[in-house]
Amino acid sequence: MKPEAIESLSFQIIDREAGPHGFSERQWTVIRRMIHTSADFDYMDTVRFHPNAIDAGIQAIRQGNNVVTDTNMAKAGIRGKELANYGGQVHCLITDPDVARAAKQAGSTRAEAAVDAAVNLMDGGIYVVGNAPTALLRLIELINSRTARPALVVGLPVGFVNAAESKAELIQMDIPYISNVGRKGGSNLAASVVNALIIQASA
Amino acid sequence: MKPEAIESLSFQIIDREAGPHGFSERQWTVIRRMIHTSADFDYMDTVRFHPNAIDAGIQAIRQGNNVVTDTNMAKAGIRGKELANYGGQVHCLITDPDVARAAKQAGSTRAEAAVDAAVNLMDGGIYVVGNAPTALLRLIELINSRTARPALVVGLPVGFVNAAESKAELIQMDIPYISNVGRKGGSNLAASVVNALIIQASA
Repeated sequence: MKPEAIESLSFQIIDREAGPHGFSERQWTVIRRMIHTSADFDYMDTVRFHPNAIDAGIQAIRQGNNVVTDTNMAKAGIRGKELANYGGQVHCLITDPDVARAAKQAGSTRAEAAVDAAVNLMDGGIYVVGNAPTALLRLIELINSRTARPALVVGLPVGFVNAAESKAELIQMDIPYISNVGRKGGSNLAASVVNALIIQASA
Repeated sequence: MKPEAIESLSFQIIDREAGPHGFSERQWTVIRRMIHTSADFDYMDTVRFHPNAIDAGIQAIRQGNNVVTDTNMAKAGIRGKELANYGGQVHCLITDPDVARAAKQAGSTRAEAAVDAAVNLMDGGIYVVGNAPTALLRLIELINSRTARPALVVGLPVGFVNAAESKAELIQMDIPYISNVGRKGGSNLAASVVNALIIQASA
């Protein structure tokens, strides 16, 4: 079987096992890819979309704006070549030496300093948090102070300390987001969301 | 909170919520990191260790042998700098142009061709499958024919087509493996297993 045939059969299995649901076709395209990436149907119950999220994400991609991620794993998982067709690039500043220096000086985490350093890069683009709640909390601060203006926040940090709390805060906001309730998430999930948007942008 | 403090608190929460279990301390170090990466306690029930797996993995790392992954996501998630302290490197051939050509000629997937191309690289090292069941099935073939001789197989492909089946086949083998039962898995989980071994090797 070719990879395309495997993916198509996988999607058929997911559709069948998921059964009826209330998502729009475009939302389902995102959630189905998250389930495909994790084999975890929990995301059907926990994902939350801001009403403008998918439009905002597709527009950002088509306009050639950047995708900025909090981890190199998420960066590695995003279809950068297809994004580049529109002029956009995937960036991750977590291992940038300037970011490490800034974090040390400020006594913050590198994940936070990487958000600060990406304010211009993310303008009109997509900020993707797949790992660090501290990154999402810092991003929320910068958006609230109108310092940062991403078109869409993909907020899927994972874990036991502040992941659920940071996402609960994001879901309260009136800005385009795709996020979920609870501890689960991850760089692979975050990448799958962006890939679902890139595929929809190209369709 | 510093990242180290967040990790330590996360591990305390996982220990508490997991409750009593029958894993050895070294096995639990691996599973706990998988739960930390995914926030998914299912792995407590589904992970399987060959009895020599952890010894073989630690020895391979200390001897400076390579880690070869099926995805660039898994590669990006593995602590390559700490591995390099022993002389080992993390390789992923999935986007290698020679691999793409070989796959085209053979009518196989790139994931399969990448296994074939890594026979020498993986010798005495760790082969990590976080995504493609076709890669794991091909690796099993090459091990059975004594063409490939990795010291340890981390087999955690995810998905709905042959992921569970390929892992069931691996778990039957008498070679060092760390794997799980069922559909779940992923590049992030696979990377977390290797990182747990790198940390144990350095302890």
